[in-house]
Amino acid sequence: MPVLDLSASSLDITRTICDIPSVSGDEVTLADAIHEAIADLPHLQIHRDGDTIVARTDLGRAQRVAIAGHIDTVPINANLPTRDIEIDGVPHLWGRGTVDMKAGVAVQLKLAAELADPRVDITWMWYDHEEVDADLNGLTRLARTRPDLFAADFAILGEPSNGAVEGGCNGNLRAIARTHGVRAHSARAWIGENAIHRAAPILTRLAEYRPREIEVEGLAYREGLNAVRIGGGVAGNVIPDLCEVEVNYRFAPSRSAAEAEQHVRDVLEGFDVEIVDLAAGARPGLDAPLAQEFLAAVGAEPRPKYGWTDVARFSAMGVPAVNYGPGDPHLAHHDEERVPVEQIASVEAGLRTWLAKR
Amino acid sequence: MPVLDLSASSLDITRTICDIPSVSGDEVTLADAIHEAIADLPHLQIHRDGDTIVARTDLGRAQRVAIAGHIDTVPINANLPTRDIEIDGVPHLWGRGTVDMKAGVAVQLKLAAELADPRVDITWMWYDHEEVDADLNGLTRLARTRPDLFAADFAILGEPSNGAVEGGCNGNLRAIARTHGVRAHSARAWIGENAIHRAAPILTRLAEYRPREIEVEGLAYREGLNAVRIGGGVAGNVIPDLCEVEVNYRFAPSRSAAEAEQHVRDVLEGFDVEIVDLAAGARPGLDAPLAQEFLAAVGAEPRPKYGWTDVARFSAMGVPAVNYGPGDPHLAHHDEERVPVEQIASVEAGLRTWLAKR
Repeated sequence: MPVLDLSASSLDITRTICDIPSVSGDEVTLADAIHEAIADLPHLQIHRDGDTIVARTDLGRAQRVAIAGHIDTVPINANLPTRDIEIDGVPHLWGRGTVDMKAGVAVQLKLAAELADPRVDITWMWYDHEEVDADLNGLTRLARTRPDLFAADFAILGEPSNGAVEGGCNGNLRAIARTHGVRAHSARAWIGENAIHRAAPILTRLAEYRPREIEVEGLAYREGLNAVRIGGGVAGNVIPDLCEVEVNYRFAPSRSAAEAEQHVRDVLEGFDVEIVDLAAGARPGLDAPLAQEFLAAVGAEPRPKYGWTDVARFSAMGVPAVNYGPGDPHLAHHDEERVPVEQIASVEAGLRTWLAKR
Repeated sequence: MPVLDLSASSLDITRTICDIPSVSGDEVTLADAIHEAIADLPHLQIHRDGDTIVARTDLGRAQRVAIAGHIDTVPINANLPTRDIEIDGVPHLWGRGTVDMKAGVAVQLKLAAELADPRVDITWMWYDHEEVDADLNGLTRLARTRPDLFAADFAILGEPSNGAVEGGCNGNLRAIARTHGVRAHSARAWIGENAIHRAAPILTRLAEYRPREIEVEGLAYREGLNAVRIGGGVAGNVIPDLCEVEVNYRFAPSRSAAEAEQHVRDVLEGFDVEIVDLAAGARPGLDAPLAQEFLAAVGAEPRPKYGWTDVARFSAMGVPAVNYGPGDPHLAHHDEERVPVEQIASVEAGLRTWLAKR
């Protein structure tokens, strides 16, 4: 089993845990290494559930903060082992997981080991299967079996946010709009009805759609409504009887899931629409007192988070949550994924400053 | 090897050769049976090339007619063996190949055996691989190796035409129109450019397109321009960077292949269009003296043929050609393919009347 030395720098810990591949479903080696590295720390109570590890302080503090990060990555594409590179003279660590989100996990692991006497109680959560179907997500499983472990006054997800604080997240809806027709030989097209032609208004409405920008608690959330897939056709000589347009709607957290669904149905009125995936967003929650203290300590101007993250899970459980981690979210899942070394250190410093007892 | 008795009725011959499966690429058993059945007929000179069989009279007649039919079928879909059925009291033979086009071949085989002294010389051609890529077509092969065998003053293809004479055929063009964009995560759609949205005008133009009906030598050819396939999309959370629309244009034989291509490029102006398949149509050729005699003998009002058939091949080689065979072309390739028994007899009678020496 690889050995994880949490007295190393957060950069070195990032390198080590990136070089232990942990594509979703294959996290056990990394989970074991993390488990082993923290097993003997007297200030942490450890709970393990599959490849999800929860480590809690229990110091009787008035408040508790959950700090979480997933340990899985999307598939490797010739981008491991990690490499030290420079871009315009700026040192980066390159490779799968450096951005999404092992640098964030590395910082959390180091602080979990070192902060034996923090100013708040902390629930550290490192979990599996975030990059795949929500049903498989380690936090989904844990919320079912041990919801008590989610109790907290505030939560921080270490998802990449360029070292800034990104509040809440947009909701996410996927739907399939279908048009129907009548199959016929294309040499006698007038006998059939062309389902692909009938999809023209769907594409026109989407092309003409102007997404809104909606301010929620002072943060401007940009929405988006897009076709992400289209398919139809039987053969080169057949008038098609079915066309499917898969639509993805990213909606501001001010809108409920039901309102988002209604909006998509309104835009695609007159068409057969099936909702295939729907996850509400999360309001930024920056008015919570702990959130205000955290922002002040980190000294960052909060921004909106556009992508859906597990902050929505905490938000839905009544725990205000933000994203705070090293790395550019645009580079998540990218083959050239890489994190500026400095951001790892700055996120570590930000969390440490706030969490260390004063 | 199954034995083929050409003294049986054309209905029974149809039943026998349908019950010898001959999906494209698997014609050898049927080709052998045909070869064996005609091998000893003294009035025929036989040339075999793979599973294509050519049988010629050489009686020194002033004129020669080519009469051809393909012996392969599209794949069987639980529609063999053949069955005798009645629809509204009308007897039919049901099963794969009954329409496309073994009833036509059965009539030809029977007449080839019986017409030892026809009024014109006849080149009978039964060929393989018509239902698949044109490169594999037995006539394509034969035209390369033995173009002399195609010499004729008139040609009749036994393709299903409901026992009527269908002149010429429409041309056939397939093209792919592509739109391009820029990939991005759909949570930050404004960074990308949606290629599927950009395909909206393609579908709108196709939906609004009004196909023409063009009169050629007295026959009205209906054209058609249709999307037959559409595809695009990377994943449910990615703005797609490519969308492809496959378009099928069936064009009247008055239009050359180059004119057809230009027309499609005009309709889809501003888009990236690639022509992937292009076969010119065939003018009806009904002004040829032999064609006029044939029409008079059969007593049928000629109609246009919409689907592309091998008449275009004869036409391109300077031989006027028509389609004349039992069965409804709408039922070709259909799982419920079936031919009215009466049409088999009437096509046999039509050909026999005209070909028999008077």
